Amino acid sequence: MKDIGVGVLGWGTVGAGVVEGLLQRADRLASRARVRPVLRRIADLDLDRDRGYTVDRAMLTTDPASVIEDPAVGVVVELIGGTGVAGELIRHALRLGKPVVTANKALLAAQGAELFAAAKAGGTGIYFEASVGGGIPIIRALRQGLIANRVRSVYGILNGTSNYILTRMESEDIPFDRALRKAQAEGYAEADPSLDIDGHDSAHKIAILAALAYGAAPPPSAVPAEGIRRITSQDIAFARELGYRIKLLASTRVLADGIGIGVQPALVPHGHLLASVGGVFNAIVVDGDLTGETLYYGRGAGRNPTASAVLSDIADAAKHLHGDPEGFPSGWSAASESVPRWFGPDDSPGRFYLRMLLKDRPGILARVAQVLGEHGISIASVMQRETAAGRHVPVIFITHEIAGRRVAEAIAAIDRLDCVGAPTVRFRIEDFSFAQT
Amino acid sequence: MKDIGVGVLGWGTVGAGVVEGLLQRADRLASRARVRPVLRRIADLDLDRDRGYTVDRAMLTTDPASVIEDPAVGVVVELIGGTGVAGELIRHALRLGKPVVTANKALLAAQGAELFAAAKAGGTGIYFEASVGGGIPIIRALRQGLIANRVRSVYGILNGTSNYILTRMESEDIPFDRALRKAQAEGYAEADPSLDIDGHDSAHKIAILAALAYGAAPPPSAVPAEGIRRITSQDIAFARELGYRIKLLASTRVLADGIGIGVQPALVPHGHLLASVGGVFNAIVVDGDLTGETLYYGRGAGRNPTASAVLSDIADAAKHLHGDPEGFPSGWSAASESVPRWFGPDDSPGRFYLRMLLKDRPGILARVAQVLGEHGISIASVMQRETAAGRHVPVIFITHEIAGRRVAEAIAAIDRLDCVGAPTVRFRIEDFSFAQT
Repeated sequence: MKDIGVGVLGWGTVGAGVVEGLLQRADRLASRARVRPVLRRIADLDLDRDRGYTVDRAMLTTDPASVIEDPAVGVVVELIGGTGVAGELIRHALRLGKPVVTANKALLAAQGAELFAAAKAGGTGIYFEASVGGGIPIIRALRQGLIANRVRSVYGILNGTSNYILTRMESEDIPFDRALRKAQAEGYAEADPSLDIDGHDSAHKIAILAALAYGAAPPPSAVPAEGIRRITSQDIAFARELGYRIKLLASTRVLADGIGIGVQPALVPHGHLLASVGGVFNAIVVDGDLTGETLYYGRGAGRNPTASAVLSDIADAAKHLHGDPEGFPSGWSAASESVPRWFGPDDSPGRFYLRMLLKDRPGILARVAQVLGEHGISIASVMQRETAAGRHVPVIFITHEIAGRRVAEAIAAIDRLDCVGAPTVRFRIEDFSFAQT
Repeated sequence: MKDIGVGVLGWGTVGAGVVEGLLQRADRLASRARVRPVLRRIADLDLDRDRGYTVDRAMLTTDPASVIEDPAVGVVVELIGGTGVAGELIRHALRLGKPVVTANKALLAAQGAELFAAAKAGGTGIYFEASVGGGIPIIRALRQGLIANRVRSVYGILNGTSNYILTRMESEDIPFDRALRKAQAEGYAEADPSLDIDGHDSAHKIAILAALAYGAAPPPSAVPAEGIRRITSQDIAFARELGYRIKLLASTRVLADGIGIGVQPALVPHGHLLASVGGVFNAIVVDGDLTGETLYYGRGAGRNPTASAVLSDIADAAKHLHGDPEGFPSGWSAASESVPRWFGPDDSPGRFYLRMLLKDRPGILARVAQVLGEHGISIASVMQRETAAGRHVPVIFITHEIAGRRVAEAIAAIDRLDCVGAPTVRFRIEDFSFAQT
């Protein structure tokens, strides 16, 4: 397996996550990408701050150009951000024919066309999955998965900070200023929050998505951005009464004579999936002419989700450098080294919904409860609607957490009782962990 | 630009969509993939049925082996389905070193390990985006986008037919049998519906997702499948009272000593995004250790969504045959041929929420309404909560559909009135077209 050297420019929050991933997930990346990305150099002005792990000092430099020019570096990762020096460094790498991985949405929105032309001239590519939607692979979805579609529109909640503020305004019934201060105190909003809450960050992102969807990059001046400062608690309450939730929506869509694009607060109907996107989460709806609407949802920012996107791009860039055709994932083959044990749902604990058909007679419920107890099952609630003395009626039991197999055994015992009129039906209750922050 | 010949085996519903896409979207695919997939041959037993378009008779044959062996065919698309002849044909193509695109989930679930070993032996690959989730690019998300993650779990609604039946049972309060018959009459369920409603189709799909997530394919016997036949209207009503909706969930997750996998009906809390997935839609939640949960939603079946996935795989297979490094999408470059016109949200019509601060005085509302009318804006509703004679109170107007620019002009006029205490705030109401069937 071939090694591909990686140089990281910018060892901040995301950079620290990417470096950690390169150090700790090398085997995973290698087995799946079938080429091994190897960390070679890191450039940052602050080399001494504690990132929670150590790297070989010889890798470190304050001079990003030396990383780009290092012959051991095959892939350059730009995580400095901003539209200044980052652009110069990317151009430098592209001139040397080295692929660049970047999360820099502001730069791509402002200078995307020029940068991609520079990549073409250098015979290489720019990878930017991390620029929109954090850990959500929306760039790949638009670029590859939906490649055959004419994209009619892209809608999305693209800024987690704004969505977090709106969610808190609604859930706690507090005004904008207070929700903003809370978000700042909790690290979800910057000291200068304008980029996020005035819609500029969303504008950069929708410009990138529009460029992918339509093959044409909008000039920054063509993307009007309005933020969330004018939204009051009252607006949120009125909207709720009307059946809507207020979201900061970025959108672009094909019109009869051009392309619509912009960022604005909008009232989204409660039944729509986007209305359920709370907290720092992002979601993007892409309407393709073949697929119809598809939706992508996840954490749109943060160290690890963004690092996940950067690492996926490093793997892709390394694979393409290696000239390796896409194929099948390592592991899925008859020659797989490790064959895991597979367990069915009955092997996992959970809460259960049990529907029994029981004779409506004194003492029956106690008898069933006793059998459940003998199998270690404790009952959270019982529901019985109809009564029909001496006849069979449906009774619903909700259990506390218990192994599925114990429930199966208890049901087998219960169904042997003569008071039971039909086989007991059991459904698992899925209490997903995944809270929407 | 290089041409890559494509041979299609199976000209049924999805095959007809794929062939149509190859004929009508060649330029789009070529400009985005930078390699041109060209339809060369089609094999089917029924060559005379009307597919709504015509193809050169010389392309047609009833002999699939002749398509595979044709030197003009570089990529083989298997859309015959089933675990019989399809597997033989795929092995035949792989032995010749030709990449195979397939939607055949039953075959992949049953023989995935052997087929991928055959691909490896032939020095080529199998592409199977269409095997799970129809138009949703979930295979790419797992294989590429989330490549750096340890996947903790994959949950999903993977069978559109079952979800459609459950949705109708709930929305119309009808029993299972009747909902099934309706689904059959409308073409959403097969005459023999067992594969869908008994969970087997979902089991095939979750086996494929587990193989991608964990790099190990479960033997079919390790994937317990339970379907939706036992779910009654009563269960749905009880579940609703408890705050849940019943869904057929396929899932796989890492356990302490193995991997859990299976298909079962489950109660999903109303607030969870999966509970909002209605009709024939599919949704998949992937929980990665870096990204946290990400969700993918869209049409999980049907001619065009599935064709979209097959076409994306054909583009990938052709690109890899061509040895072309992934790069930048055609069009996004300074040399873009067509520069579209870009429009902001104010250029599009919509319904609007207007919050005005108006003096609480007789006649004011009429005056404002008059200004709105002069700008062609008709009012759907007005809300005023507080009253405070002679003071300013917030008043909400909901408009009928109108161009955003007209609203902006009307607001400018209204805000000049002396009865207005603060600039009027305006939010768009997004009534998404995208109904959940």
